Amino acid sequence: MMTISSILRRYSGLKKLFKKMKNYKLQTLIGCISTKDQLSQILKYCNSRCLAVVPQGGNTGLVGGSVPVFDEVIINTRRMNSIISFDETSGVLVCEAGCILENLISFLDKKGFIMPLDLGAKGSCQIGGNVSTNAGGLRLVRYGSLHGTVLGLEAVLANGDVIDMLGTLRKDNTGYDLKHLFIGSEGSLGIITKISILTPPKLSSVNIAFLACQDYVSCQKLLFQAKRRLGEILSAFEFLDAQAMNLVLNHLDSVRNPLPSSVYNFYVLIETTGSEESSDKEKLEAFLLHAMESGLVSDGAIAQDFNQASSFWHIREGVPEALMKAGAVYKYDLSLPVEKMYDLVEEMRIRLGEKANVVGYGHLGDGNLHLNISAPQYDDSLLAQIEPFVYEWTSRHRGSISAEHGLGLMKAEKIFYSKASGTVQLMASIKKLLDPSGILNPYKVIPTSLLS
Amino acid sequence: MMTISSILRRYSGLKKLFKKMKNYKLQTLIGCISTKDQLSQILKYCNSRCLAVVPQGGNTGLVGGSVPVFDEVIINTRRMNSIISFDETSGVLVCEAGCILENLISFLDKKGFIMPLDLGAKGSCQIGGNVSTNAGGLRLVRYGSLHGTVLGLEAVLANGDVIDMLGTLRKDNTGYDLKHLFIGSEGSLGIITKISILTPPKLSSVNIAFLACQDYVSCQKLLFQAKRRLGEILSAFEFLDAQAMNLVLNHLDSVRNPLPSSVYNFYVLIETTGSEESSDKEKLEAFLLHAMESGLVSDGAIAQDFNQASSFWHIREGVPEALMKAGAVYKYDLSLPVEKMYDLVEEMRIRLGEKANVVGYGHLGDGNLHLNISAPQYDDSLLAQIEPFVYEWTSRHRGSISAEHGLGLMKAEKIFYSKASGTVQLMASIKKLLDPSGILNPYKVIPTSLLS
Repeated sequence: MMTISSILRRYSGLKKLFKKMKNYKLQTLIGCISTKDQLSQILKYCNSRCLAVVPQGGNTGLVGGSVPVFDEVIINTRRMNSIISFDETSGVLVCEAGCILENLISFLDKKGFIMPLDLGAKGSCQIGGNVSTNAGGLRLVRYGSLHGTVLGLEAVLANGDVIDMLGTLRKDNTGYDLKHLFIGSEGSLGIITKISILTPPKLSSVNIAFLACQDYVSCQKLLFQAKRRLGEILSAFEFLDAQAMNLVLNHLDSVRNPLPSSVYNFYVLIETTGSEESSDKEKLEAFLLHAMESGLVSDGAIAQDFNQASSFWHIREGVPEALMKAGAVYKYDLSLPVEKMYDLVEEMRIRLGEKANVVGYGHLGDGNLHLNISAPQYDDSLLAQIEPFVYEWTSRHRGSISAEHGLGLMKAEKIFYSKASGTVQLMASIKKLLDPSGILNPYKVIPTSLLS
Repeated sequence: MMTISSILRRYSGLKKLFKKMKNYKLQTLIGCISTKDQLSQILKYCNSRCLAVVPQGGNTGLVGGSVPVFDEVIINTRRMNSIISFDETSGVLVCEAGCILENLISFLDKKGFIMPLDLGAKGSCQIGGNVSTNAGGLRLVRYGSLHGTVLGLEAVLANGDVIDMLGTLRKDNTGYDLKHLFIGSEGSLGIITKISILTPPKLSSVNIAFLACQDYVSCQKLLFQAKRRLGEILSAFEFLDAQAMNLVLNHLDSVRNPLPSSVYNFYVLIETTGSEESSDKEKLEAFLLHAMESGLVSDGAIAQDFNQASSFWHIREGVPEALMKAGAVYKYDLSLPVEKMYDLVEEMRIRLGEKANVVGYGHLGDGNLHLNISAPQYDDSLLAQIEPFVYEWTSRHRGSISAEHGLGLMKAEKIFYSKASGTVQLMASIKKLLDPSGILNPYKVIPTSLLS
């Protein structure tokens, strides 16, 4: 790992070299920052010389948000990994941006608390990256988005100014709540260095059911019933279609079908989290009984122990891995009104015919569809049948073309499918105000044409 | 009520008159807007002529946020009071800004849903005003702040541009989430015209307990225990001290003391909301039994019916009315770390001695203290003993000088007690970007000196 001064020296030399070259591409300048003051110094230097930077708080995105495009310096925050404080009365955790999500989860577990977000990449993603991309994940249906749970943050602006918004209060109406500008702006307005976040107490009773439904309408009705009957203990409502289930069963050795007696069109995973084992389980059982009697659910199983619970989750979480093993995959992370969501999967299936396997799964409880299209290999003519159709369809139904993965590099120019022109213009004005030289994560989030 | 054109005509005439006067004061120009297009037209007109406006979405604030200072036109949104849509699957309500909170609560009640916020002023406050001031209220401990529950909004900028951010999706990471700029900025960046908000299902079982504690440490411990043992069903945790309780008992005829057998130093109101009556009640009873056995609670009562529940709430909600009846009152709405919160009340009591009755109550579950100082009449020498002491104390403990009531006119110049200088500078830059002529709610929120 290079030191900061060596980066700057090297970069200064490289700049001279670059000037002689016309079509350069270099992606090896990585600086690991240990303090906000170092970061401030680096950004001040880069800003004054119009050198671009890419922040990396983990590198687990789908849209190239943390990938350098040309000669940007990569600023990695992984050395800023201290837990600063934890208050057991309020449940407020204050930590540096480079803390790995899984380490925070383990730390809190010992204190009897949990992080309000959890996601597949937890072993390598950093909390600063999570906040910068407004990561969603598996617990959003219960604990809401990071705009609700992040109480404060510290960020360094493009010009090196350190902005201290690191409050730890649940309520603070003194002026504009500017931390929200940095939540989900993918490092393009500032680099987050510290975070304070409200963590819920760890509740003792977790129950998981794996259910089968014959049609999508039943999945929807089941969600409606679950919100009402499971109410405050509902903590996840995930779904996968038969195509996703088959992929997992065919490509992942460790997975067993919990409902092998027949083949179903849809599978739903319901998790409850509460404070009392016996009443929670009774409530879930009564809910399932009612759902089976009313014909919404065709078959189902409740996990009897931790291993079985993990194996249920493994099916849902195993879909991306199974897709990777199956060949080429085109991934779309969409928000849509729940009642329209699966229409897109079916229309795409008709559209593509035999050429591809169209797979639908995701966070049904949040209206978040992962539409994945699996094919033997990547193929431009197939892609041309998928895009822009998928974006136009989503836009027509007032959905979001990126529910939880951001726009990054790959979708920056597609922002108008989900956002009105006036809103995007306002975003560009704010980008220009906070980063007039455009050094922070260039070519990402906002269409480049609006920033010149 | 005047028509818009008559306002504009009259205002134009009045402007000429004002020019001849040196120290004018006029507070009678009120325009009721029915559509966003009217509002856009008005703002475009005012902006081009540098005429200031004050938005009023209800007028129930503590800090003069909706009060005109000189000759501002008042823009009242109460005619924009339509419910646009409600989706029972997702629980998303879309409505105009002028809807009265209580009307929305009644509408949702029939559908089996609730608003995620509830507050004393619900009979007259408008949802647009609630969102513009980021109102907190009684349900925040359970459902979080409006930054988490508001999914989208439409706002008109100072120059008349209508910004459509009226998404209805729980997850949407396409660009900067600019709606947060308008939540809590007290109409100084734009006027909100429509809102979409996530509403939780109405759960059938509500239980309320009224408890007595001998000291503040016990209240804190009780909160810690309640979060853990009541977990997902906890929906309110309010407290009042003996001084607040006495005021209510002495000044409100309709109030009865539920724990008359002795006098206690603190009273706590705990509400649970869940989906199953019997298990919820068992849980609350077990919690109370444990709290009494461990000595945290000296006495307590659980409401046996709706009337009793209302009478418990009436004690807590009656404190402001009782204070008004008792004489002059200085009100402070502070966020503080829970463990420090009551130290301020005690220090203030020592500081003021016999001159005033220092009262502490509020939303303990959110770390929100309402410090109220009651005196026979308003008195500058008393005020000089309270301020700036109260702000300095709050600032020293990294608290907020306005937890849920905003800065408005009265506290704009006090923003530095709670926000770092760099952050306030950034707020001022954003104000200047969005409202370069400074026509929206002038003299409020941001210190005037930063905007020239």
